[in-house]
Amino acid sequence: MSAPSSFFDVVSARQQTLNTLLCVGLDPDLSKIPQRYQVAARPVLAFCRDVIDATHDLVATFKPQFAHFAAADALGDLKEIIAHCRDLKVPVILDAKRGDVGSTSDFYAREAFDVYGADAVTVNPYLGGDSLEPFLERADKGVILLCRTSNPGGADLQNLKLASGEELYEYVAQLAATQWNSRGNIGLVVGATRPAELKRVREITGNMTFLLPGIGAQGGDVAASLEAGRGGGLIVSSSRAVLYPDSDAPGAVRAAAMATRDLINEHRG
Amino acid sequence: MSAPSSFFDVVSARQQTLNTLLCVGLDPDLSKIPQRYQVAARPVLAFCRDVIDATHDLVATFKPQFAHFAAADALGDLKEIIAHCRDLKVPVILDAKRGDVGSTSDFYAREAFDVYGADAVTVNPYLGGDSLEPFLERADKGVILLCRTSNPGGADLQNLKLASGEELYEYVAQLAATQWNSRGNIGLVVGATRPAELKRVREITGNMTFLLPGIGAQGGDVAASLEAGRGGGLIVSSSRAVLYPDSDAPGAVRAAAMATRDLINEHRG
Repeated sequence: MSAPSSFFDVVSARQQTLNTLLCVGLDPDLSKIPQRYQVAARPVLAFCRDVIDATHDLVATFKPQFAHFAAADALGDLKEIIAHCRDLKVPVILDAKRGDVGSTSDFYAREAFDVYGADAVTVNPYLGGDSLEPFLERADKGVILLCRTSNPGGADLQNLKLASGEELYEYVAQLAATQWNSRGNIGLVVGATRPAELKRVREITGNMTFLLPGIGAQGGDVAASLEAGRGGGLIVSSSRAVLYPDSDAPGAVRAAAMATRDLINEHRG
Repeated sequence: MSAPSSFFDVVSARQQTLNTLLCVGLDPDLSKIPQRYQVAARPVLAFCRDVIDATHDLVATFKPQFAHFAAADALGDLKEIIAHCRDLKVPVILDAKRGDVGSTSDFYAREAFDVYGADAVTVNPYLGGDSLEPFLERADKGVILLCRTSNPGGADLQNLKLASGEELYEYVAQLAATQWNSRGNIGLVVGATRPAELKRVREITGNMTFLLPGIGAQGGDVAASLEAGRGGGLIVSSSRAVLYPDSDAPGAVRAAAMATRDLINEHRG
């Protein structure tokens, strides 16, 4: 019996076929979407469907962000949007940063993979190995752990120096690459705003796939990040810079996605 | 202008009036609820309403756990259940363990406090201070940070020794008691399974309120935990032991809640 194709294999194949590392983050914000959607019966759904339809051939993955749908009381829209991505054969990362004691993480795994139908989910490692197991058991799914996040406050805990000499994010990377990864379905979140740490995580984890948020609105440096992340899988995510370009014109989202994809390709080497 | 009454003040007043530290965790699990609910149109709603009606005068707070509702695709029920608790004037902790970069945490704060109407929410500290700020800004709400969780795997990161000599959970407790707590609305999750760490967190944080999960099914030691937590607020949570007693008889949930409340009171000293 052969193992199911893993999420990261599927993403990697699609990245090669389409020549793109871009992941478009779907962060619908009613205060930012163009006026023409505001009058729709379901503005979040209408906006996200148009973004998906305008960009799916430019991306390797979509990454809907849970809180943006939850705050708009639009979780029905989230479900339909993920189903739409699946119809288009684009793998979906549900960005939900879940994590709880094991018996409860089991319910979170069902939420992400069964209720919403995501192919991968972002997870917070603070509760340790047994809290991750219910996600990891789903061997065909991707489990993308927070390692060094893109926000400045990420340093508060993640850059703490341990008695062993490492920093906390390095230790998380090490656990993720070894004892936690018996099924080979872990990836890591490493902010594109932190190229030095990204380089270090690459050294620790070999060819593990990283999700790099922070390109665009958060100011991540594309060239430095791609250089630092060389040697393994990269999923390069942009949300606000693609979703909310300066222009509200119908073609602006596609143009922004294309420019971001091309910028990434220019620096891939 | 007087400050809004804080969540922890409201809970403390109710604890004194009703002479109870008990928090009943609402973790509806379709595989465990009595047969008579399985046939209801909305089994999660019917079960939780009955639990609330049977126990509200015995508890200081209810703590619905998000994943259990999400996995059952019953978030509409979660909303109604929280509204029902509010009608009964019982404060509600939404146990959701949220946390993301600041711009996204803002949407999670709206989810917990505006969409679901919770009075407090559990939050994961791994992303640092700026990720907590959107929750903390809601000064009348409680923000209960994970410190030392009740699961064995909690040790993987939380008990790491830092270069400073402290363990990670001690450092989190310290930040929670000082620089993060400018509005006085932080509480901490410290598992009832970990009395030694609980005692240490009490030393670090003065009279801060702790949420103690792990009584009952997780094997937490009530006497040792209450002794260790002395000197500040305590919210003692039990979920499975109250929701799923050995008997399916209609009075069994109330009896289990009453026994747990009394056991806690016996050891309060």
